[in-house]
Amino acid sequence: MRRIDLTSAGFLLLEKRETPMHVGGINLFTLPDGAAEHEFLGDLRELLRSTTAFRKPFGEYVVTGKTGLYWEKDEHIDLDYHVRHSALPAPGRYRELFALASRLHTTLLDRTRPLWELHLIEGLQNRQFAVYNKIHHAAIDGVGAMHLTRSMCSEDPEERIDYGPFSLEAYEIYKEMRFGARKKPVPPRQSELRNVVDAIKHQYDSSMHLVTAMRRFGAAFIGRGGNLAVPWHNVPKTTLNTRVSGARRFVAQSFDFQRVRAVSRALDATVNDVVLAMCSGALRRYLLTRDELPRHSLKAMAPVSLRDETDLDSTNAVGFITADLATNVYDPEKRLRTIQDSMRAGKDLLRSLSSREAALFMQLTQVPALLTSVLGLASRYPAFSTVVSNVPGPRERLYWNGARLDGIYPASIVFDGFAMNITMVSYVDKLDFGIVACRRSLPQVQRMIDHLEEALAELEAVAGTAPAATRSRTTQGRGPRRPARQASVIKPKLAASDKAPAKSRSAASGKAVPKKAPSKKAPSKKASSKRASPKNAPAKKAPSKKAPSKKAAAKKAIAKKASPKKATPGKARRERAASKRSAGAGR
Amino acid sequence: MRRIDLTSAGFLLLEKRETPMHVGGINLFTLPDGAAEHEFLGDLRELLRSTTAFRKPFGEYVVTGKTGLYWEKDEHIDLDYHVRHSALPAPGRYRELFALASRLHTTLLDRTRPLWELHLIEGLQNRQFAVYNKIHHAAIDGVGAMHLTRSMCSEDPEERIDYGPFSLEAYEIYKEMRFGARKKPVPPRQSELRNVVDAIKHQYDSSMHLVTAMRRFGAAFIGRGGNLAVPWHNVPKTTLNTRVSGARRFVAQSFDFQRVRAVSRALDATVNDVVLAMCSGALRRYLLTRDELPRHSLKAMAPVSLRDETDLDSTNAVGFITADLATNVYDPEKRLRTIQDSMRAGKDLLRSLSSREAALFMQLTQVPALLTSVLGLASRYPAFSTVVSNVPGPRERLYWNGARLDGIYPASIVFDGFAMNITMVSYVDKLDFGIVACRRSLPQVQRMIDHLEEALAELEAVAGTAPAATRSRTTQGRGPRRPARQASVIKPKLAASDKAPAKSRSAASGKAVPKKAPSKKAPSKKASSKRASPKNAPAKKAPSKKAPSKKAAAKKAIAKKASPKKATPGKARRERAASKRSAGAGR
Repeated sequence: MRRIDLTSAGFLLLEKRETPMHVGGINLFTLPDGAAEHEFLGDLRELLRSTTAFRKPFGEYVVTGKTGLYWEKDEHIDLDYHVRHSALPAPGRYRELFALASRLHTTLLDRTRPLWELHLIEGLQNRQFAVYNKIHHAAIDGVGAMHLTRSMCSEDPEERIDYGPFSLEAYEIYKEMRFGARKKPVPPRQSELRNVVDAIKHQYDSSMHLVTAMRRFGAAFIGRGGNLAVPWHNVPKTTLNTRVSGARRFVAQSFDFQRVRAVSRALDATVNDVVLAMCSGALRRYLLTRDELPRHSLKAMAPVSLRDETDLDSTNAVGFITADLATNVYDPEKRLRTIQDSMRAGKDLLRSLSSREAALFMQLTQVPALLTSVLGLASRYPAFSTVVSNVPGPRERLYWNGARLDGIYPASIVFDGFAMNITMVSYVDKLDFGIVACRRSLPQVQRMIDHLEEALAELEAVAGTAPAATRSRTTQGRGPRRPARQASVIKPKLAASDKAPAKSRSAASGKAVPKKAPSKKAPSKKASSKRASPKNAPAKKAPSKKAPSKKAAAKKAIAKKASPKKATPGKARRERAASKRSAGAGR
Repeated sequence: MRRIDLTSAGFLLLEKRETPMHVGGINLFTLPDGAAEHEFLGDLRELLRSTTAFRKPFGEYVVTGKTGLYWEKDEHIDLDYHVRHSALPAPGRYRELFALASRLHTTLLDRTRPLWELHLIEGLQNRQFAVYNKIHHAAIDGVGAMHLTRSMCSEDPEERIDYGPFSLEAYEIYKEMRFGARKKPVPPRQSELRNVVDAIKHQYDSSMHLVTAMRRFGAAFIGRGGNLAVPWHNVPKTTLNTRVSGARRFVAQSFDFQRVRAVSRALDATVNDVVLAMCSGALRRYLLTRDELPRHSLKAMAPVSLRDETDLDSTNAVGFITADLATNVYDPEKRLRTIQDSMRAGKDLLRSLSSREAALFMQLTQVPALLTSVLGLASRYPAFSTVVSNVPGPRERLYWNGARLDGIYPASIVFDGFAMNITMVSYVDKLDFGIVACRRSLPQVQRMIDHLEEALAELEAVAGTAPAATRSRTTQGRGPRRPARQASVIKPKLAASDKAPAKSRSAASGKAVPKKAPSKKAPSKKASSKRASPKNAPAKKAPSKKAPSKKAAAKKAIAKKASPKKATPGKARRERAASKRSAGAGR
């Protein structure tokens, strides 16, 4: 039994049938050349079901003890239950995929089992397949999810990996690879200190820092916080802040990272500021269309990672900054500046604290949220309008046993008081947006995808980086931008599906289909990184060459220490691949 | 707002995330000749999504009022949510279908919407497709579900039906067809009297009957009830009586109705007695295999319909008899006799009451069940060991817009205290069994399918009707028995899948695959009914010929009274079909 830290336990305690507290999303892959879909997925399924030793807490379930919640080992994991093989009905477009993902994201995880599900989904067009994953937020946060994705994939299309993402093996090889032998003796164990009592006990010194931070936090409520935006303060009530019902709608889209970066450089803002400005512009349009734009500006909760680099183990190491989205400002540049100021003020506040203090601060300022939730008042007194979460993903193209990872579309949580959640993952040369919304409160959420594009184009116009806007929206994480002759087609996708659905009334959940280049056109990885991010290509490609050999070395290191296991064919294959990689890196 | 009657409300109040209270199941169809699967299902999907006026309570959702629960009209039904198009991964066997059905049956219905879902499932082998339906028990009982199936289908493969099962239109045409114009002025409105207060108010006369019944019920507890078995009394604790977790496993199988009938005639028992004896024998074997057979015999709750013939509207009109399954008896005939005696005693008790009194009696004797559930003691003090529910289904082969209905496999409820539910529907010449079990408590539930076959064979041996046993087990609701040369193959299916699953660990949920004849061998409806039930064929075929014309006439009657609607192509088709049917009947 391991005690579950307070933040993680919060996700379990606040969960209701209408508000599941799992995160996850869709990972899109392209089958390796020549692979038969069903056999390939069948092999992956058996691989996933062959895990016997799990990394924490993926082999554990939640039990209620006398003094809180605990993880307890599940001695009889039924992997047929956790690993599922599903299929899309014809014609297997993203529309059908999103409809399925919407449904899968709607249902609760089984509390009597380890809190995760993986769905292998066949039947997509263009030799793609999808993996929908669903993990309780008590067991993982965004950064943790990226570690998981990295640990199950390889940068080498040739490498064969015979362990699942939740296996102890994946964890150990990944840890070895990232930190080597030196740092291993003291892996920061499950951060119990995020339990308030422990934290207070161990951190007498922190009181002054905390008191100061709480004072600044409190000052913002009476209008003396400068640019610091705080939860509840002047948060307008909109359709985003309803009580949510159980059903979800999930839509996703890729945007070219270069477009966002170009704007951020031209306007001297961070990428995250630009992303928030995109969301702000999109929400403004969304509410204007519904004639519901409030006088006060929307506030977004922007999670920030409190995790240090070596921490692979925390289930939740997340803090929050409240961003003033300035949706009541007409001028897009002014909007960006207001966002920027509020983010800076929020970061300053956190920066005055150590990461432990920050964790404690977060818990203290979350108490009101806990209270309003428990009292059922969360929708009457919204702490913020929406969540905009930007998770740094892999910078290198990844492969899962030869299948190319094309995109990582996250699906997160909505709750009473915020019926929409916008989360994005940066991956290679793309920003993959995943939007989850309450299906009843926000039935038109797929329009947000268009509005995001419009908002980005607006920012590009301000920044003078506009030409890019017309080129790259449709590349969908599969390679380079389209040639410039596509410039006239700004909104090809949604326009088309707005006209089409006379027959398919299911269009709603799948309208915002990320457009993708036919797979045969997708260039090789090298060509892609060269064209899509010319400036960074050399800097990025260096680790790309090195990393596999690191991974291979890590595997060897693990293998040496491991108790003599029987050499399964998979293992042998892996060893061969590993030595092959080492050789390759030495060239 | 309409008040929800007490029995129905009970299903809502007792529902937890681990114990969903919906019923439903799989309807198997064969595509019409020449129909393309995806287009055909796409048309059905749009048909189902085109409903605008709903029969009660399928257009309503549950609200909590001051004095109980009420149905309230949902003004914004999102039919994309309720009607879902799904697919099976390759190779599309029953194994994959049952795996999907197990998952779908696991998740809760959304309480903020009308309490039903329909899933059209493509990707099955042999030109079959499946419809998984899921309806809250507060909205329907077994007999009601059969009315629903009948109202959406036709006995005529040529007839085109352009309304969904939940539409007001389907309801009205079906009512017209069954009862004609005479009975319509006083349709028994939603049986409010099943509310205890109302019932007591209206039924002073009943007190004596009820007191007598309660006395007999009570006497059984102190060993003076004769053959009357009562809940809680001597119910042994087995693995069937655990607290259940959220996940389900669903398996299904068809048995030849003639085999059961032959045993029942030879041994002078009812079909239901024989079915209970099959379940008893199967459970005995199941528990013996696990070395868990208890000294006391298992008790089954056997629901009986309290509905009168003209009642199409009740959501729940069900009473319960407790059957002594005599699982502690070695001799299969003695087992049957004990079951028979306890069923007779239970029926005698109910027969002494009017249907209103019976309903009240049921509510009074259910109070302890409600209490143990609410107190979380249901698994410590089990009222019974399992539920065996026999629902009379259509006697004529049905078609849904030309697609032949091959089988109706019900999936019902398990709860703390009974982790297995065996429900069966009689359809044409088959008994279609559907077994739902808690996936954690009873992981080997698919073995029950084999045990049922063994138990039936055992009874056939006693009855001297044994030869049939080897002929027909494998026909799976698609027509006549196999020729006698198949006699040597008694357990072909399960034996095969017991050896196969080294690779597919998902076998568990799909082992008990109902074997089916290749569809090309399936004979026409007429040939089928002639061969499978030679004695009844003429008697049955008469209504078979008449019914469609009745339905057509009913449609016309409805059409006349209906306000002038626009003549959709579908309507025109229906009218044509209707007149064609009338003409046909006149010949």
